[in-house]
Amino acid sequence: MTREEKFMLEAVKLAGKGVMANEGGPFGCVIVKGDEIVGRGNNRVLTDNDPTSHAEVVAIRDACARLGTYQLDDCEIYASCEPCPMCLGAIYWARPKVVYYAGTKDDAAKSGFDDSFIYREIELPREQRKIPFLKIQLSDALAPFRVWDEKSDKKEY
Amino acid sequence: MTREEKFMLEAVKLAGKGVMANEGGPFGCVIVKGDEIVGRGNNRVLTDNDPTSHAEVVAIRDACARLGTYQLDDCEIYASCEPCPMCLGAIYWARPKVVYYAGTKDDAAKSGFDDSFIYREIELPREQRKIPFLKIQLSDALAPFRVWDEKSDKKEY
Repeated sequence: MTREEKFMLEAVKLAGKGVMANEGGPFGCVIVKGDEIVGRGNNRVLTDNDPTSHAEVVAIRDACARLGTYQLDDCEIYASCEPCPMCLGAIYWARPKVVYYAGTKDDAAKSGFDDSFIYREIELPREQRKIPFLKIQLSDALAPFRVWDEKSDKKEY
Repeated sequence: MTREEKFMLEAVKLAGKGVMANEGGPFGCVIVKGDEIVGRGNNRVLTDNDPTSHAEVVAIRDACARLGTYQLDDCEIYASCEPCPMCLGAIYWARPKVVYYAGTKDDAAKSGFDDSFIYREIELPREQRKIPFLKIQLSDALAPFRVWDEKSDKKEY
């Protein structure tokens, strides 16, 4: 078994344990820095009452808390299944060096987890989406950006 | 000022307050059920050391904790700026009835927040992305899905 397969097996094990404990769907994730696991997560949507408690988000938050950073430079993410758009976005903001996945979004869809639907929605014009995204014109809308632009002691990230 | 403009102004105010408090970028969000604000958030990436602490995610988690649910049926989301892909995904999982936004992703990009980059990456084949997404073949990869499929006391969501 390769190094990568070994870490992936840990992610898959977390997925199974989460289901057995009724915490949420069958998804697990570990985050590795060097040869050490620095973050672990499984889907906890049901126990946390939190739709954002996907395995990857839980693992990213765990690793960031442990490492005291909001950036996972040089880290590898092992997800038992291909990330949904939310987790993909979270991964880009965390900036690991690589993502490994085992199951695919088609495997997830067969068990009732239809991430593909969200990927299709992203492509649609905002007002044609199942959840409509509507723009409100407000004269103060951009004021926070100007506060940010002009703030001299801000930490850019 | 319309009802919708009034709630959007609250989201914009949260965005500005978050920047002034050095909590993170200039983004705010409120979640409304009926005529009551049930969730509030602003970007807290810097103070939380958490790349997932975007305004929308913080507000969704706040509303779900308050309402004791992982689904925001009948709720409206007011985001001071167009959601990034992570927040868009989080919104789809939370299933509100509508999303209103004020600033656009182009406004965000001008202040250094390049969500558009992630939207472009989603379109690319997995192995051509800036962060490569690589599939690992593992014989046990789908075992958690079979555990889920066969679990008789699972709560589907």
